Amino acid sequence: MKFKVFCTIFVLCVGISLISCNGTQEQAEQEEPEQVMDLAQVRQSIEEANVKFGEAASSGDATALASLYTEDARLLPPNSEMIQGREGVEAFWAGGFQMGIKEIVLTTVEVMGMGDMVCEIGKAVVTIQPEGQEAIEDIGKYVVIWKKTADGTWKLHVDIWNTNLPLQ
Amino acid sequence: MKFKVFCTIFVLCVGISLISCNGTQEQAEQEEPEQVMDLAQVRQSIEEANVKFGEAASSGDATALASLYTEDARLLPPNSEMIQGREGVEAFWAGGFQMGIKEIVLTTVEVMGMGDMVCEIGKAVVTIQPEGQEAIEDIGKYVVIWKKTADGTWKLHVDIWNTNLPLQ
Repeated sequence: MKFKVFCTIFVLCVGISLISCNGTQEQAEQEEPEQVMDLAQVRQSIEEANVKFGEAASSGDATALASLYTEDARLLPPNSEMIQGREGVEAFWAGGFQMGIKEIVLTTVEVMGMGDMVCEIGKAVVTIQPEGQEAIEDIGKYVVIWKKTADGTWKLHVDIWNTNLPLQ
Repeated sequence: MKFKVFCTIFVLCVGISLISCNGTQEQAEQEEPEQVMDLAQVRQSIEEANVKFGEAASSGDATALASLYTEDARLLPPNSEMIQGREGVEAFWAGGFQMGIKEIVLTTVEVMGMGDMVCEIGKAVVTIQPEGQEAIEDIGKYVVIWKKTADGTWKLHVDIWNTNLPLQ
């Protein structure tokens, strides 16, 4: 009789254990759609950050613009060496505003990857008007690696771009 | 007595269940160092692919070069619209060889991210010698998003670059 009780309880416990394991597996399987949803949410955060990027550019505010980058961000501008660190990023954009950058409009084309780092491909339209001259428009494209920072904000971590316009 | 046996077996089973759960957690925690090791391996694969990239460029073999890209790769060359798909990638490099590209040397600076997609930042030295002219050297930088394909090979999925040289 004791043996029968033992067997019953043993089978019961193994059953519970299996159900528990199965639950964990199901949870793991359910993570994928959540991740897919995450990417849509990340894209929204990126697009919101790009609006702030445009606002900072229109105000000629290099400090506000640099605050959208990570502390150790890498900037890879055309006709320049690679720049690393937020201070260098701020100095670069301050120089750009002095040279006449008036407006930067960024449009996300694609967001890929997952985790705490994603890649954005986008199109950029930059309006430049040096003092006393006509405004010119540069149409280009970019790749930005966005990194999720400790407070949950997505920031530009790697930023490279080039022009679509033919060589002059 | 039956109750005592029940309690003993129950405690035993809960214990086994907890040990089992703990094992799963430890396994999850152990995944991180493996991932770090993975990134070093991925960097090695990328550097090997970059050697093949250089060899294909030196041979002026656009087909071999394009085979290093994913089927739906995006190429973002300066002074050009965005190009998508391996066929377009091949046509672009074929055009580059016709224009006089003789050598491309790629040097990896940093590899970041994880999973099936990683970001490489690098430096590029491109030697161009149009027919009957002196060779010129373009020094630039690039960002490549590498994607792990079904057969385990890492291929260029997004490729953007620009020059370090000042505007002429």
